Amino acid sequence: MTLEEAKKAIKEPDQQAMELCKRRWDSIAKPLHSLGKLEDNLVKIAGITGSADIHLEKKALVTMCADNGVVEEGVTQTGQEVTAIVTDNFLNKKATASILCSMAGADIFPVDIGVAAETHVIDRKIAWGTKNMTKGPAMTREEAQQALETGISMVEELKNKGYSLIATGEMGIGNTTTSSAVASVLLNEEVEKMTGRGAGLSSEGMTRKINAIKKAIEINQPDPTDGVDVLSKVGGFDIAGMAGLFIGGAVYGVPIVIDGFISAVAALAAARICPLVKEYMLASHVSKEPAAHLILEALGLSAPLHCDMCLGEGTGAVVLFPILDLACGVYNGMSTFQDIQVEEYKPLA
Amino acid sequence: MTLEEAKKAIKEPDQQAMELCKRRWDSIAKPLHSLGKLEDNLVKIAGITGSADIHLEKKALVTMCADNGVVEEGVTQTGQEVTAIVTDNFLNKKATASILCSMAGADIFPVDIGVAAETHVIDRKIAWGTKNMTKGPAMTREEAQQALETGISMVEELKNKGYSLIATGEMGIGNTTTSSAVASVLLNEEVEKMTGRGAGLSSEGMTRKINAIKKAIEINQPDPTDGVDVLSKVGGFDIAGMAGLFIGGAVYGVPIVIDGFISAVAALAAARICPLVKEYMLASHVSKEPAAHLILEALGLSAPLHCDMCLGEGTGAVVLFPILDLACGVYNGMSTFQDIQVEEYKPLA
Repeated sequence: MTLEEAKKAIKEPDQQAMELCKRRWDSIAKPLHSLGKLEDNLVKIAGITGSADIHLEKKALVTMCADNGVVEEGVTQTGQEVTAIVTDNFLNKKATASILCSMAGADIFPVDIGVAAETHVIDRKIAWGTKNMTKGPAMTREEAQQALETGISMVEELKNKGYSLIATGEMGIGNTTTSSAVASVLLNEEVEKMTGRGAGLSSEGMTRKINAIKKAIEINQPDPTDGVDVLSKVGGFDIAGMAGLFIGGAVYGVPIVIDGFISAVAALAAARICPLVKEYMLASHVSKEPAAHLILEALGLSAPLHCDMCLGEGTGAVVLFPILDLACGVYNGMSTFQDIQVEEYKPLA
Repeated sequence: MTLEEAKKAIKEPDQQAMELCKRRWDSIAKPLHSLGKLEDNLVKIAGITGSADIHLEKKALVTMCADNGVVEEGVTQTGQEVTAIVTDNFLNKKATASILCSMAGADIFPVDIGVAAETHVIDRKIAWGTKNMTKGPAMTREEAQQALETGISMVEELKNKGYSLIATGEMGIGNTTTSSAVASVLLNEEVEKMTGRGAGLSSEGMTRKINAIKKAIEINQPDPTDGVDVLSKVGGFDIAGMAGLFIGGAVYGVPIVIDGFISAVAALAAARICPLVKEYMLASHVSKEPAAHLILEALGLSAPLHCDMCLGEGTGAVVLFPILDLACGVYNGMSTFQDIQVEEYKPLA
């Protein structure tokens, strides 16, 4: 499916399914809305899938892996070669995200969407890394579109395989730099406010990072009203691929879980491309990166997890899985007021 | 063990075990402290148990169930008979907490510490409910002490049965009223600021609730420096029993998980009785009750879950279990930097 076809295919979530789900929650023998966001998330999922019958047994994490030309500018603590190493580690349970997935009963689908070395994961390589965005666009508009369509098609494939919940993750040395650039443009905020230390950058490294972002924005002049333009000029294949996952979720009616900062930036870009996509995302955690909460706010989302995590790879999104499982367990397994012969909760006269 | 013996038995957490645990986290192939509170919680657990070898397979939820004489004042939406119904429902997976426990791989131990009716759970009944605290002390000082010692002995029993992590929960119609009273006295805060709508109270009900709390404090004059005095005069058997669990955790080196508002109030009372107890508690979620975050702050704790839950029963504490399991999975299962041949994360020069 092309990006243009996808945009046309997206509809409002199913209000009737949401209403039915809410009614089921209210009939369950517990104070009204006392499970808070656990309830809200299932109501949202009902709207996304079009059914109040909610089962989340088959869960996936898609990690979009790619390299970023901007690492030439000394904006990272580790070298570019780490991207390929960690990408392959997703397959053999040596990466944090793959360990978490195996514990949370989820399958991991690492996608090489632009790693600058050979890898052994799902091959959707668009290029061997992006170009250095401080010297020109990170990629062409066509490449950005291709990355978005890669994300959309991944959701289609996974839905066909029976997955009902997809978390987003990434691996790409240098991708907090591109994320801060994209966030800065999309939210029209100072680069300094949008930039953090990533995986533990020194103060000098931090200065280089901020300067590189400013230079990239200056030289490329991305159009903040055009998500594809922003992604192609100062983004990365990983971010664009994840943005595609969010759009795909809205097309195919599959809830997509936002991870931390980078993933939230992708979600914001997706929402800029097609505002309705917002209704198809679930927030998981608030990353320790300084801009993370601002982006969630811009998306109108509130995350249940405040764990100060900042690992990436989809790790925060996967931590939401067992919480949603618990919510489903109560939703599907618990007695109603009628069953236990207690009067329903109603306000006192 | 008597309360006095318990207080004498409590020592500082094991600094060496914490240091070892932290060192293990830092050697794992991921950015330093990138799992945030997941790491912090295991470091704390290492200090509590005295070992960096952390396994949380056997988990328990203890729900302290009791009635509160103050319900006579019309401070609740539901009648007192619901306490016994829900207490027994813990046994047959009809209560929210018991469903969550079975999903989270935990065992539930409901304790009748003062229900005003016959129940079929663990019998540690001290009295058939407390007295109406607006007319005099809710219980005698001896009864409060007995409730505290009941909690302490529950931890001893569970530790002997091999449990390595205990969540606290409660069931007791009227116990947000007593909790607000205890919180108000211990924190020296306005009753209005400490009082919420519990399980969905009307505005009129809310006025009755605030007035009842004020009257109870006025008539009993509890001594804020004496936790036992506060618990006995304006608390409940459930709160005192939970406070005992926290003290027991500190005595026997078992991490005890705080649930929501009521449980946090019990934690605060326990810390007033013996300040070191603070080091043995883990925060789970921030309840929707307005004073919940103030109490966690007073305890110097920061909760990983912000789910707007307000159900009680230990439900929020149990939601922390799978998160701690995930943390353990990474801690015990993941490769070190050496294993994957990547250089350790260190700040750039």
